[in-house]
Amino acid sequence: MNLLIPGPTPLPPEVREALGRAMIDHRGEEFGRTLRNLLEGLQQIFRTTSPVLMFATSGTGGLEAAVVNVLSPGDRVLALSCGMFGERFASVARSFGAEVIMEEAPWGRGVDPQQVMDALRRHDGVRAVLVTHNETSTGVTNDLRAIADAARGSGALLLVDAVSSLGAIDLRADAWSLDVVVTGSQKALMGPPGAVFISVSPNAWEAAKAARMPKHYFSFAMARDQLASDAAYTPFTPAIPVVYALAVSLPMILREGLEARFAHHRRLARITRTGVQALGLALFAEARWASETVTAVQVPAGIDGKELRARLLRRFGVAVAGGQGALDGRIFRIGHMGYVQEAQIVDALEALEHVLAELGHRRSPVSST
Amino acid sequence: MNLLIPGPTPLPPEVREALGRAMIDHRGEEFGRTLRNLLEGLQQIFRTTSPVLMFATSGTGGLEAAVVNVLSPGDRVLALSCGMFGERFASVARSFGAEVIMEEAPWGRGVDPQQVMDALRRHDGVRAVLVTHNETSTGVTNDLRAIADAARGSGALLLVDAVSSLGAIDLRADAWSLDVVVTGSQKALMGPPGAVFISVSPNAWEAAKAARMPKHYFSFAMARDQLASDAAYTPFTPAIPVVYALAVSLPMILREGLEARFAHHRRLARITRTGVQALGLALFAEARWASETVTAVQVPAGIDGKELRARLLRRFGVAVAGGQGALDGRIFRIGHMGYVQEAQIVDALEALEHVLAELGHRRSPVSST
Repeated sequence: MNLLIPGPTPLPPEVREALGRAMIDHRGEEFGRTLRNLLEGLQQIFRTTSPVLMFATSGTGGLEAAVVNVLSPGDRVLALSCGMFGERFASVARSFGAEVIMEEAPWGRGVDPQQVMDALRRHDGVRAVLVTHNETSTGVTNDLRAIADAARGSGALLLVDAVSSLGAIDLRADAWSLDVVVTGSQKALMGPPGAVFISVSPNAWEAAKAARMPKHYFSFAMARDQLASDAAYTPFTPAIPVVYALAVSLPMILREGLEARFAHHRRLARITRTGVQALGLALFAEARWASETVTAVQVPAGIDGKELRARLLRRFGVAVAGGQGALDGRIFRIGHMGYVQEAQIVDALEALEHVLAELGHRRSPVSST
Repeated sequence: MNLLIPGPTPLPPEVREALGRAMIDHRGEEFGRTLRNLLEGLQQIFRTTSPVLMFATSGTGGLEAAVVNVLSPGDRVLALSCGMFGERFASVARSFGAEVIMEEAPWGRGVDPQQVMDALRRHDGVRAVLVTHNETSTGVTNDLRAIADAARGSGALLLVDAVSSLGAIDLRADAWSLDVVVTGSQKALMGPPGAVFISVSPNAWEAAKAARMPKHYFSFAMARDQLASDAAYTPFTPAIPVVYALAVSLPMILREGLEARFAHHRRLARITRTGVQALGLALFAEARWASETVTAVQVPAGIDGKELRARLLRRFGVAVAGGQGALDGRIFRIGHMGYVQEAQIVDALEALEHVLAELGHRRSPVSST
């Protein structure tokens, strides 16, 4: 299968091999060494000197961990949303009793940093700003650095969903004062799904002391304390195969270098955007916010988006994602993150050309961005 | 490594191979079919006609899911504890605002069903009883059926931690009226850690409607609704490799048959108990409660338990677990669950004999139980 969805992503052969390793004692020295190396290596990806924690869960579980560890019920938070994952982050906070103020950008665009600054002026006592770095539902990347600048000085913590960006798009936890940054194992980090990694700033640790939202499994403090202990490195049984996988993929990423990884994603994104536009399709995201890990493409009028994806999969083995929520049937999404190779994109574009022709789409190329 | 800890457990070669399979679209038909087959197959292990849900998390995350989906803050619960995992279940409930009444058995013994009946008479309005089926910290199996009989008619829901028992020790969710049963992927089910499976009775679904403990990631309702949907089988990205693994190990278990699997565990437990007693060591659990998935052994006076385990590992590649909490250094624990083979136990007993002799232990066999 030519897997081009916004995660899970294809795995390097070495990573697939590592997944099948024999189980070991997760309280033993060997596992402890592997885990500590992994979490220390990840600090280079998060660009932080703060510890990185790990939880066996999905990205959404990671967002829940971010919220419940630094907030109390009734706390006011500002949720910046430009798509489904922005809404989800807000929904998690609401589930645990936060008072959520939404600041939304029209889907297809990113959040305007000026809007963030205005909102923080307008609303007193905002304890945290929630932001999605890369919004896969619309193929939009927020200008995280500018948003962080806008939020700085407000006293609010900045909680960042970097699930589909970290390792592919520039992010600097310390330099940009990002307080909690959440990423998943199955995107740019080239592992399978099953674990999240979270960096926690000194300010976030301070806030954690007073945070009264209930938690147990997702407790940052328990995770930190166990990691520091002699022989029980995680409070609860970790997702061992994911650790094996990342212990192989992370050195691959670090050897190649972060800048080279960013360039790789930029290149794939450019090929994808140019290619679909050459086929006469329009992009969903506005050019200045176009994501480098996922491209959202508008389904042309008169074409059945579901049938388009079904034919791509059945006839050419190309798996792309559909639209979510209100965008169901209106867009499809091509993921190009992690281990995705240029040849996969080229093959998918050829398959797309065939299927569009079959479905009677008349090509009228739009100008390339 | 001869891995004999109470989970993670050794994996069959076919399972290890399955772990390395290429990633696929978790919203695609192929994954949907695999997941549904798996969850339906698991109903035979839980012995239930109720749906079985899956979450990417550890066993403790599964206990949290059980608590937060059927209870509200302030609800009174009766926590039956005979070891560390019983305490943990209570601690989870307390974290989310339950009023927890503890009923404890001395460590090394199971909970007396009469004690349960008395406690339910003594305390009004108990909404749920929390019980650990198999307590790995002490090597004790509770008489779950008798406890369920004792709780029946009280109106309390019965929430069961079956993480280290399901598939190895008899448990009948429907026949015994167990309302929520939680198990993990990495014990008797012969998979790697990373997912839990949870059966939910009609009574528990009814209670879920009114339950007000906050939740998002662990929501039963979201998991059920997504499973019933056309193309998005889990609300959040599932632990795909664990699903691949269990899709191979579960048919192995079902082909062999549950009764044969129980007999296998009984046999390994008997060999283990007989063997360590023949070496002059005493068991920690009283005979009538001795677990069939893990045997807790007392460290003889004058022997350093940590050194004993270190030598077993370094010299013979045998990994056994130490004692937890108050039992640290006082016991060691031999896991014999899932894919563990008789030859592994025999090898471990030989290694133990050598190491005990080296450490100056004088054998004085105690009578076999």
